Amino acid sequence: MKFKSTAIAHPNIAFVKYWGKKDENLRIPLNNSISMNLGNLWTKTTVEFNDFDEDVVTINKNVAEGTAKERVIKHLDRFRNLSGIELKAKVVSENNFPMSSGIASSASGFAALTMSCANALKLNLSEKELSILARLGSGSACRSIPNGFTEWLTGTCNDDSYAVSLAPAEHFEIYDLIIIVKKEKKEISSTTGMQKFNPYFYARLAEVNENLNFVRKGIIERNLKTLGTYAEKDCISMHTTMMNSGLFYWEPETLKIMKEVWNLRKNGIECYFTIDAGPNVHILCLKDNKAEIREKIGELNFEILESKPGGKTMVIEESLF
Amino acid sequence: MKFKSTAIAHPNIAFVKYWGKKDENLRIPLNNSISMNLGNLWTKTTVEFNDFDEDVVTINKNVAEGTAKERVIKHLDRFRNLSGIELKAKVVSENNFPMSSGIASSASGFAALTMSCANALKLNLSEKELSILARLGSGSACRSIPNGFTEWLTGTCNDDSYAVSLAPAEHFEIYDLIIIVKKEKKEISSTTGMQKFNPYFYARLAEVNENLNFVRKGIIERNLKTLGTYAEKDCISMHTTMMNSGLFYWEPETLKIMKEVWNLRKNGIECYFTIDAGPNVHILCLKDNKAEIREKIGELNFEILESKPGGKTMVIEESLF
Repeated sequence: MKFKSTAIAHPNIAFVKYWGKKDENLRIPLNNSISMNLGNLWTKTTVEFNDFDEDVVTINKNVAEGTAKERVIKHLDRFRNLSGIELKAKVVSENNFPMSSGIASSASGFAALTMSCANALKLNLSEKELSILARLGSGSACRSIPNGFTEWLTGTCNDDSYAVSLAPAEHFEIYDLIIIVKKEKKEISSTTGMQKFNPYFYARLAEVNENLNFVRKGIIERNLKTLGTYAEKDCISMHTTMMNSGLFYWEPETLKIMKEVWNLRKNGIECYFTIDAGPNVHILCLKDNKAEIREKIGELNFEILESKPGGKTMVIEESLF
Repeated sequence: MKFKSTAIAHPNIAFVKYWGKKDENLRIPLNNSISMNLGNLWTKTTVEFNDFDEDVVTINKNVAEGTAKERVIKHLDRFRNLSGIELKAKVVSENNFPMSSGIASSASGFAALTMSCANALKLNLSEKELSILARLGSGSACRSIPNGFTEWLTGTCNDDSYAVSLAPAEHFEIYDLIIIVKKEKKEISSTTGMQKFNPYFYARLAEVNENLNFVRKGIIERNLKTLGTYAEKDCISMHTTMMNSGLFYWEPETLKIMKEVWNLRKNGIECYFTIDAGPNVHILCLKDNKAEIREKIGELNFEILESKPGGKTMVIEESLF
């Protein structure tokens, strides 16, 4: 019996953000969130359970140690518990996107790990079950499991906090231009940052349902204006909430690009920004405006990555190797 | 009988901000605010009620028209009503600080106008009555009436919304270094901006009393750390509340200076920032650190204005002219 499998998963960019948890250990968020898988970016993970002496985890050709390794082993344990198979594992994971993208590899990493473990151990899991398991590894990983545009339903306990697909990748051809502001690693991880609670959280929660409704509507109706307006609003809401906890992810260049987006829009070029817990800016646009936006932002001397919507987390047939 | 008088008033910088009103017409704010008069900056206003054909208002050697003129005439009417003297007036007002400072001249302007009108018309008004009248002209003008460090008590009606002195100018020798980011006039006046209500106001109100308590304590105990820490917190609270109404007063350079202040502090140079409804940054510091801060900020190529605490609004003896 061979317990080996390889899976590919995409990172995702949230249009309505995940910030603040109801349950720290189970990673159950305060509010639903909506994201798009980034099709041009991926993590490929191979896991093999075998007669090894210990678990070995290799990420981007480096052997993982410390917290990073422990977090993966904790995830392997979840699958050993589910399957009853007590073998140690070898995990090899690679991203096709650079650290400088500011794109957290934990979402695609834990989505790919979840899928490869489930398939290697012949567990017959539903998409919902996979999403729940991915969430336990890294919250936003649950959103990378289903196809295209997905919504993480906050839920109330372990069994009902997972993501569903709102629309497949091919439903709406929008582009995410990722403007690289800073190549260094951010100083504060979002997990630490999220634990600082403040009264602005309540203000955020008071309007997040409106943001969710309109972003969902924008996706379903293929309306970038609706989607983008509320994604931008939600981004400002999250970042200002963080600032009131003393967390400043914006750099002067971040603000410069935000203002350039408003400027482009004023000049009739439709685009909207969103920003994760880092300084890089994601500009959302349609195909027709992509070249012009790249040119204008390029003039400001920023490096740009590009992605269109991506599919669900998938097993890659071993015969291909 | 000669109805002529000249008064001098200082603008002020708020450590705990005024944002949002309970009563739009009476300019009664949602929360108390605390500020310091800026002694090196002033507005000098001469008013003469006489047998003129009409009210003429000259500000910085230009004859005022439109809204600016109407606002002054409305204020003159308040004094004509109080005194029963129906004469038209000539108002001549001058500031010693440039528009580029981003310092609103409305606070010092209406404080000086209030004092000169009251004195010209021989009204025997208390400081409280003067502060109430100044408030009707321009909200924050009420804080420029008393001496030094002042607190505007929000109150519930016209008669109990006014400012008092917490400590005189000479009580605490701190400096405000005004870093000029942008010389152009801001696009949105703060009066317009303030009317956009949002749920983040409630979050701000939930913590503003703490900010007021500590800033007051910092002033009384001459403790810059206490004052500055909460002034900075309150500044972020106001600006993030505004951002959630779509009002962005920060420029990339604003953020650059904020980060430089944190950097200076990390290196043991004590200073704190606050920012009004504009892009310029006010750096608060003690005398001993002033030169070093000016040097560091100067290296970034910004122009700097400087002020220490200022006294109350005062009549200048006519014999001096």
